[in-house]
Amino acid sequence: MATHEKIRKIFADVLACGERVITEDVAKRVLSEYGVKVPPYALATSEAEAEEKSGQLGFPLVAKIVSPQILHKTEVKGVKLGLQSQADAREAFRDMHGRLAQRYKLKGVLLEKMVPSGAELIVGLQNDPQFGPIIMAGIGGIYTEVFKDVAFRVLPITGADALSMIEELKGKRLLEGFRGASPVSKPMMAEVLVNLGNLGADLAAYYESVDFNPVIFYERDYYVVDAKIILRETTDPHAISRAQPDSTSMDLFFNPKSIALVGASPETGKVGNSVLESLKRFPGTVFPVNAKGYPEIMGIKAYRSLEEISEQIDLVVVTVDLKFVPDLLKQAATKSNHNFVVISGGGKELGGERAAIEAEVKRLSRELGIRIIGPNCIGIFNAANRLDCAFQGAKRMVRPKKGTVAFLSQSGTIGIAFMEASDTFGVSKMISYGNRSDVDEADMISYFSEESQTRVIGLYVEGFGDGRKFMNAAKRAIAKNKKPIVVFKNGRTAVGAKQAASHTGSLGGSYGVVKGAMEQAGVISVDSYEELTSALKALNWQPVPKGSRVALVTNGAGPVITAIDNFERLGLQVAELSEQTLRTFKAHYPPTYIIGNPCDITGSATADDYRFAIQAFMEDPNVDILMPWFVFQDDPLEETIVDVLAAFQERAAKPMVIGAMGGPFTIGISQRIEDARIPVYHSAIEWVAAAGALARWARVSGASS
Amino acid sequence: MATHEKIRKIFADVLACGERVITEDVAKRVLSEYGVKVPPYALATSEAEAEEKSGQLGFPLVAKIVSPQILHKTEVKGVKLGLQSQADAREAFRDMHGRLAQRYKLKGVLLEKMVPSGAELIVGLQNDPQFGPIIMAGIGGIYTEVFKDVAFRVLPITGADALSMIEELKGKRLLEGFRGASPVSKPMMAEVLVNLGNLGADLAAYYESVDFNPVIFYERDYYVVDAKIILRETTDPHAISRAQPDSTSMDLFFNPKSIALVGASPETGKVGNSVLESLKRFPGTVFPVNAKGYPEIMGIKAYRSLEEISEQIDLVVVTVDLKFVPDLLKQAATKSNHNFVVISGGGKELGGERAAIEAEVKRLSRELGIRIIGPNCIGIFNAANRLDCAFQGAKRMVRPKKGTVAFLSQSGTIGIAFMEASDTFGVSKMISYGNRSDVDEADMISYFSEESQTRVIGLYVEGFGDGRKFMNAAKRAIAKNKKPIVVFKNGRTAVGAKQAASHTGSLGGSYGVVKGAMEQAGVISVDSYEELTSALKALNWQPVPKGSRVALVTNGAGPVITAIDNFERLGLQVAELSEQTLRTFKAHYPPTYIIGNPCDITGSATADDYRFAIQAFMEDPNVDILMPWFVFQDDPLEETIVDVLAAFQERAAKPMVIGAMGGPFTIGISQRIEDARIPVYHSAIEWVAAAGALARWARVSGASS
Repeated sequence: MATHEKIRKIFADVLACGERVITEDVAKRVLSEYGVKVPPYALATSEAEAEEKSGQLGFPLVAKIVSPQILHKTEVKGVKLGLQSQADAREAFRDMHGRLAQRYKLKGVLLEKMVPSGAELIVGLQNDPQFGPIIMAGIGGIYTEVFKDVAFRVLPITGADALSMIEELKGKRLLEGFRGASPVSKPMMAEVLVNLGNLGADLAAYYESVDFNPVIFYERDYYVVDAKIILRETTDPHAISRAQPDSTSMDLFFNPKSIALVGASPETGKVGNSVLESLKRFPGTVFPVNAKGYPEIMGIKAYRSLEEISEQIDLVVVTVDLKFVPDLLKQAATKSNHNFVVISGGGKELGGERAAIEAEVKRLSRELGIRIIGPNCIGIFNAANRLDCAFQGAKRMVRPKKGTVAFLSQSGTIGIAFMEASDTFGVSKMISYGNRSDVDEADMISYFSEESQTRVIGLYVEGFGDGRKFMNAAKRAIAKNKKPIVVFKNGRTAVGAKQAASHTGSLGGSYGVVKGAMEQAGVISVDSYEELTSALKALNWQPVPKGSRVALVTNGAGPVITAIDNFERLGLQVAELSEQTLRTFKAHYPPTYIIGNPCDITGSATADDYRFAIQAFMEDPNVDILMPWFVFQDDPLEETIVDVLAAFQERAAKPMVIGAMGGPFTIGISQRIEDARIPVYHSAIEWVAAAGALARWARVSGASS
Repeated sequence: MATHEKIRKIFADVLACGERVITEDVAKRVLSEYGVKVPPYALATSEAEAEEKSGQLGFPLVAKIVSPQILHKTEVKGVKLGLQSQADAREAFRDMHGRLAQRYKLKGVLLEKMVPSGAELIVGLQNDPQFGPIIMAGIGGIYTEVFKDVAFRVLPITGADALSMIEELKGKRLLEGFRGASPVSKPMMAEVLVNLGNLGADLAAYYESVDFNPVIFYERDYYVVDAKIILRETTDPHAISRAQPDSTSMDLFFNPKSIALVGASPETGKVGNSVLESLKRFPGTVFPVNAKGYPEIMGIKAYRSLEEISEQIDLVVVTVDLKFVPDLLKQAATKSNHNFVVISGGGKELGGERAAIEAEVKRLSRELGIRIIGPNCIGIFNAANRLDCAFQGAKRMVRPKKGTVAFLSQSGTIGIAFMEASDTFGVSKMISYGNRSDVDEADMISYFSEESQTRVIGLYVEGFGDGRKFMNAAKRAIAKNKKPIVVFKNGRTAVGAKQAASHTGSLGGSYGVVKGAMEQAGVISVDSYEELTSALKALNWQPVPKGSRVALVTNGAGPVITAIDNFERLGLQVAELSEQTLRTFKAHYPPTYIIGNPCDITGSATADDYRFAIQAFMEDPNVDILMPWFVFQDDPLEETIVDVLAAFQERAAKPMVIGAMGGPFTIGISQRIEDARIPVYHSAIEWVAAAGALARWARVSGASS
């Protein structure tokens, strides 16, 4: 019988007895099955057995009461440390059993060899609402509780995942030979985490939570000293989501031949009026639908219902109350319409009967095979055919030029902001997906990973629908299609996440778990909407660096300091310039320039001074990424700097991201530089975040060594 | 003899013996003098004394070797715990003394009553290069070292300072009754910190560092268990700077009648050419000076040297190499010129002989009584008379309109960026002060606290010249003149601070110390240049709130989540709306609106929907600050919203900060709202930072209860 089969049987037996707590003796058997070390132990069910088995184990020992009804053994004085003899063991049994047998159902007393003190980890297995079974590791003791110094990953994990978890802990110094202790072998520690993770993945259907606390590590050895397993009330065979991303019919959202708008209105200021205005730009057929029976709306023949339309409809856009959507879906099904965009909100974010309506919409989507984007969104945009169904008029919202960045946003507001912000670098397609009744992040990532117009994918998310499905889609897009995915997860604090939940009805969960999952999936995770936009622009326009060593040149140092303050957070290093570079700088520049990295060429800097530094950085084998900052306002700097930079971009040897702050002149010159596809940032934080995204992509895509 | 006089004598005696380490017996006497409790102890100098004194103290005891040569007692086995009898004490003395007497100069063995375990703090006294004597407190044990969970304040401290230090510690839960322990009395803890702080302030001239580690706290009692005092090699009577802010002649920088420009150049692209271009706008007399002997430059009669000018010169602006400045100062002194602005860089930031030149400039400034701004800066700007001496041409850099914000920047680059960014709300005066040879932050704050055009002061700083002098000036401007001071300290990480040091030759020091000092001074400390600008705009235009409870209303929720994620960092709370407000919302709004705080009035929101919510928030006694967010792109929202908001601003009952992101339409409508002096932010982080600054100012100025 395979390991996990054996254990499933053990758990089933426990559940059959009406218990949910796995006693320590059984938990240790389970661990042994997974090759995890526990201190030598034996279960004694009588005083005689305690005497006999203690003699076999040797001393010192600890005695612990074993009962499925006792979760906190110390609280009932059910633990005795430092037993030194068989007589001690007999006495410990007599005392505990005597005191506790009347109040609890006892299995006996566990005798366990005491192990020396060492570096302690706490390891936990939990079921996350977004990601399913996850593993948590933290420095043991009160550190974990007070300092919240923990790392999470989604199960199962690889050795590399385990090592990166350890690196994430601030308290890792305590494992690395703190105050004269021997350092713990990290590969060994990683192996333990992998084994515990395998157990967690295999048995996810059964447990509610598992605590290994503490796991004691020595230089080359370890023990799991205590294990607490609590089973679910009923097993959940779907604990690990096996859902596959589904990009069926996704393309029809963007390339329909005909569109019906249910809720089309002749009244300005109504959502259904603005959407029709938007749809009029679309080159195919549009059918306005309004139950009031207008003969035409905005000069287009109108219909009372979907049923009245005899022609084929590829896409139905809905702005009427969500409560009408179930009927619309049923009507559409009879006419083999494929896709729906439901702009109307008022679904699960309101709870109660409104949530029930949305649940029905979701059910019908599956049953009838109709793909739905929304509800509670602004829908879709295709830059190629200029199709959009936004209720933001052309006068109020810029539709971006065609480019190669796809953008997916749970928030319509962020989708709108991005549409306008991305006009500089261009968009392939945008989806505002709102409450995600059907099409979710994974489906979209899966679609865009194969879609030829898209090279880079951006995602704004408040809570994942099926985190595991998302991770699988993301990993595939990254590994197979080599498309970077940049994610900003909003709602990170408890109070922010609560707000996110009321917004699109999604459960944010712990940000720690999301952070771990993004790290694991190879996603480029950023810390604000501004960083998201910044990263996408850089990834869209710049080559992949070979590493994360940055060289900076500037005629004004303040913002450079801010950038460097963010290097550690973003995984960047200040490049150590080669002797050659430093020599040429010293020979070339006047003595008032501050040679080094950053290279401060002061307010006297000319375009040629910049050219010289950038050329040297391009040739320096110690430099991977270039970050020039400019005070374009300084008069000595000629406007020919635009051509200097454009010439470097043509060679595209190493990525370059530029920073500059200022008014109309700075904005104008920045635009001319961006015409050459070199990104310019007007905030030091966005500037350095762009470099951080490039470096992260280099690591994830394997470009950096 | 006063306490500190007694102790100074003790220290002087130790130094006279050629020692720098205060032994534990003496340290404990020092503590007792300051009313700080130490466990009962006695020094034994013989076995007999050990036996006798141990009997008097009672048991259990700990024995510790006492020697000025032994800093780490445990490393030489110089500590023995758990002595239970007089025989134990005699034996401990014999053992330690026997082993160690040959290698070290011993004073004897300290016998100390062992105290029960409790909550441990580590408290340290240090001398900071910017702020002088400071106190540090952290959770004891390895927490402090590994998690860097410490708080700093500048000495002396008040009880309120001490309490706020404790609140700053992440690990404060360990003091508040963790896992069933009794909570420690915080007023008692604060009193201990105040006493240790007084000791630190009184004796600052003598010590290099002091460690109280651990201080053990119980519910209503405590002990300082170990104290380590290391003296300076030579005492420093100036350890606590007594420097007073000096605003003498400051006004002459901004209102001179005549200006000489040394380095004026006819060549475009030269700094001295651009500065002359700027000075030409100034309505007084300008004397271009250039050693090459041009008869005129830009049509203005030129001079070979300052000496050639027979008229009075109020201000000398210098763009020539710093090495000429000492001579210029001497020449100017003979002509009673008051002020210099030295734009040229190349001083202490380069080290070596260049640093020596700058030191000479500094010395001459004092000796000759000439006030200097710079070197290494872009100088000054006065919005009233349009005087500036920037080498950024009018075509390249906007000079802002006249307003009430004064801005001081160590970085010229940030000064330039701010000049342009502040054109919306206006500036009184700007100073880019660079290397700060003479005029420093404190002098400027002191000047602006009395200057009538200025209501709000902003400061960008990389390292303080004299932190204590700054704090005094800031406290006075805040308390007496009621002018808020907003500070962004750049260079916070070790690597960033190193860069700041090479930039303007200033020592950044630990950011923890700066953070503590800003808290203590009542400064509004922000985390980026963008937050600095955002805060200044809000403080300039909006009334002071009564507290920090925020109400939000929006037609798009994404950015609201980001804002709320930042509430804790910024000391803001989500206001709990009154029953009355919630009732009116429910009665008024359609069922698809999400009632609450934030109030999500969805994409269907009209201007009147906003008016209704804002009116309710203005009337709700539970709301202090209003944060409306707008998706102006949404068609249902009428442009009359501008008038709605302006009407609220006229009543100016509660402060309001607005957020919106988007392209030309959004920017246009935002400008119209800002015309009514309501600040609009285009990033959620800047938006919430502005609210945070208002709330902080309410606390500091005493407006909030």
